[in-house]
Amino acid sequence: MKLLPLSCVLHALSIVHAFRYDHLVEHVNSHQDQYVQALREWVSVESDSSDVSKRAELHRMMEMTADKLRAMGGNVTLVDIGEQQLPNGEMLALPKVVTAQFISDPLKTTVCVYGHVDVQPGKLEDGWATEPYNLTEINGNMHGRGTSDNKAPVLAWIHAVEAYQALNIELPVNVKFIIEGMEETGSNGLDAMVVAQRDTFLLDVDYIIISDCGWLSLRPALTYGTRGNCYFSAEIEGAKQDLHSGVYGGTVIEPMTDLIGILDTLISPSGKILIPGIREAVDPLTDEEWKTYQDIEFDMENYKNKLGVTELMYNNKVDLLAHMWRYPTVSIHGIEGAFSAPGTKTVIPAKVAAKFSIRQVPSMDPEVVKKQVTEYLEAAFARRKSPNKLKVTMVIGAKPWLANTQHVLYEAGKKAVKRVFNVEPDMIREGGTIPVARTFQDVTGKGIIMMPIGGFDDGMHSQNEKISRYNYLEGTKLFIAYLHEVSQIQKSRV
Amino acid sequence: MKLLPLSCVLHALSIVHAFRYDHLVEHVNSHQDQYVQALREWVSVESDSSDVSKRAELHRMMEMTADKLRAMGGNVTLVDIGEQQLPNGEMLALPKVVTAQFISDPLKTTVCVYGHVDVQPGKLEDGWATEPYNLTEINGNMHGRGTSDNKAPVLAWIHAVEAYQALNIELPVNVKFIIEGMEETGSNGLDAMVVAQRDTFLLDVDYIIISDCGWLSLRPALTYGTRGNCYFSAEIEGAKQDLHSGVYGGTVIEPMTDLIGILDTLISPSGKILIPGIREAVDPLTDEEWKTYQDIEFDMENYKNKLGVTELMYNNKVDLLAHMWRYPTVSIHGIEGAFSAPGTKTVIPAKVAAKFSIRQVPSMDPEVVKKQVTEYLEAAFARRKSPNKLKVTMVIGAKPWLANTQHVLYEAGKKAVKRVFNVEPDMIREGGTIPVARTFQDVTGKGIIMMPIGGFDDGMHSQNEKISRYNYLEGTKLFIAYLHEVSQIQKSRV
Repeated sequence: MKLLPLSCVLHALSIVHAFRYDHLVEHVNSHQDQYVQALREWVSVESDSSDVSKRAELHRMMEMTADKLRAMGGNVTLVDIGEQQLPNGEMLALPKVVTAQFISDPLKTTVCVYGHVDVQPGKLEDGWATEPYNLTEINGNMHGRGTSDNKAPVLAWIHAVEAYQALNIELPVNVKFIIEGMEETGSNGLDAMVVAQRDTFLLDVDYIIISDCGWLSLRPALTYGTRGNCYFSAEIEGAKQDLHSGVYGGTVIEPMTDLIGILDTLISPSGKILIPGIREAVDPLTDEEWKTYQDIEFDMENYKNKLGVTELMYNNKVDLLAHMWRYPTVSIHGIEGAFSAPGTKTVIPAKVAAKFSIRQVPSMDPEVVKKQVTEYLEAAFARRKSPNKLKVTMVIGAKPWLANTQHVLYEAGKKAVKRVFNVEPDMIREGGTIPVARTFQDVTGKGIIMMPIGGFDDGMHSQNEKISRYNYLEGTKLFIAYLHEVSQIQKSRV
Repeated sequence: MKLLPLSCVLHALSIVHAFRYDHLVEHVNSHQDQYVQALREWVSVESDSSDVSKRAELHRMMEMTADKLRAMGGNVTLVDIGEQQLPNGEMLALPKVVTAQFISDPLKTTVCVYGHVDVQPGKLEDGWATEPYNLTEINGNMHGRGTSDNKAPVLAWIHAVEAYQALNIELPVNVKFIIEGMEETGSNGLDAMVVAQRDTFLLDVDYIIISDCGWLSLRPALTYGTRGNCYFSAEIEGAKQDLHSGVYGGTVIEPMTDLIGILDTLISPSGKILIPGIREAVDPLTDEEWKTYQDIEFDMENYKNKLGVTELMYNNKVDLLAHMWRYPTVSIHGIEGAFSAPGTKTVIPAKVAAKFSIRQVPSMDPEVVKKQVTEYLEAAFARRKSPNKLKVTMVIGAKPWLANTQHVLYEAGKKAVKRVFNVEPDMIREGGTIPVARTFQDVTGKGIIMMPIGGFDDGMHSQNEKISRYNYLEGTKLFIAYLHEVSQIQKSRV
């Protein structure tokens, strides 16, 4: 926060920078087809950061993002953040991080919008109803991989700046962008960049805004916490190549049997994590939290219907929300190296690697989790007395994040939501992980807010991901309004 | 077996049909490049019967086989065996079965060679060192999917007939062929065809010969038994689509956790099948069997080295061979529907199906096994009190087979091996399954022999499958010699 000398304030009042919200809204409404076209172009790029064979597309996506911001007159840099080491030892260039600056007045408040333009894997054969990389609008929903997570929100922020520019209204605050391309695999390389630019690019940033999440219901929400993500690979290797299960079955100790055996020790049927130390590290639920959760608008039946399930892990709202947001959980995602195609292959896979992750919560440390999981699985494997080889690796160790909901940023957020949607937002947490939130918090000490615009049913990470045209447009308006409300924080402090 | 009137025997003696073995061998040696080229053409067809998207290639493979046999003057029929029902309810045409007849004299003995030209799946990314469908010869080994299993052995039988034809030597016995295209997925439709043609095509067949297996060591072998194969799919379905593991993890009961839990009840770390009734159904090992196994040439160290493992499930030869051939085993092949690609996908898969199989042995009935497995898994699943849905399906139920090694066919086989390789064959069983063997036995009551020419290290069903040029050529010679030896059985009986 900067304290402005009175002379500056007087000068600022004399120039044209009125907040003509209605004009801005009109501009957004009349440009919606251009916005959809921009999203279509971005979605057409298969910027899957987890699939190294798609790396060229990811590089292209970063260049497109930089080009877009440059064309708007931003001061754009593509920041080299180095290489990643692949499991086979090879080095692969990370996608550059795009930074951009739209500085209308160095004396104004400066916000930095963080987003990402990489996406989860998406293949038609996974059960998509439409081509994942061909934006397809059905009944007001625009389907495509990466629409809601996170390309449309990033574009909405860009459109918000464009709208001010188009109407020759001075930006109420300076706006910076940090757009990365490795979020879906743990923001590899970004932490180091944030540390490196703390005293340069980030020095004059007052607040950081993240719009990489979704609402809980039809009611708009502000998000004040995320879970972390410790993503593991447990690989078991036996024979030097796959074997015919008829010819060799019964003579060899099969890696799949070993792997199933150790995976089955991770979590109980009722959802209890069985790894010693994990549950003990979790903060107890406070009465205040209980009250907050109790007050949140959340329809259990609606949630079940949306998912298409008859029962949930917990049958009351508070337990369910608590286990969605503030308790850790284990998910087993799949097994690499085993037979996964349709049909019948009679194979004993030689090397199989299970992928599973633990969503951890504020008082848990990824490095401790790594040790707990590794030792636990190694002990379970040792009990089997198998001659096969086990290798446990933590491939992502992203930290959770928790904000103070009394912060001025959240007060400003509530005002912006009220202006655009005419309701009070739900104050929610997010079960998923935005790895960089915690880093921004730890490294810069700046205020951070998460302001989602994704719908509760957008299907991030699943088939048929979408964002509605409504959320995309109203989200753009929300961001326009929020830039104004943030500028008012400064004024109220002056 | 036919009894010939004396006049016919005298007539037969007056025509030229001497067994000019040296000439035939010379012909084989001088035509080896043509044989390799024929194999190359067959291997180039991706006739994967388990992948329904490859069905057109499979049909083409059957046509090529028919064309080849027709060009040799065979009386060839493409037998329509109907359709198969896919898991989604759709019907798909089965590949036609090729039958062919080379009848030199209706009064002679008639053998019927069974083989198949469909293959296991094979993809470069599974770890093949060469393109699976591009025959590649390295140090005398010809690599390619389906080389040893079963295209080269089928071609070797064809070359054996061709050699007699080329040298104008009358075939010592009539030769028929039954070549199918669904062996790798359980010979769907073939059983019904065998039943239907029992009193027509199969009526005058005296013996059935199958060459769809491999030797145990460098020593040639004759095979007198196979295990069956009950191949299961256990599918668990939860939400109506995949979910983000951050957003939903902790609130839903995950199908993968359920599936891992029930799979872990199938088999103990020391290889014991835990499904009640399975082990009880197995015949006890007789002293005679023990002695037979004890005498077989089998080097445990060599076997371990070939597989690249430090320990086997049993550390003595008899136990190991017995569990390879005459005890059942469970193998878990993989999981369809879960995340199986490289990288990190944070997904809760909505519907996952484990593929596993039980190699069952002569006194076990597939229908009983199906019931035992289904009830056992359903009970294990019920104990979890999961709201998800479990569906257990036995997709293959192929029976085991056991022959009498004192049969004249085996005596003739030993003579042929002795002539070509100048050694006594090992008498072995096969851990894998040749589903039709048992059907031929049950339906026709004819004598059946398995005469392998595949090498012990051919890697059927695994990466880098191969057959050596040596085995391909010497195998052709073995089949040439065997046709002669079978004709001598008839003579000795007249």
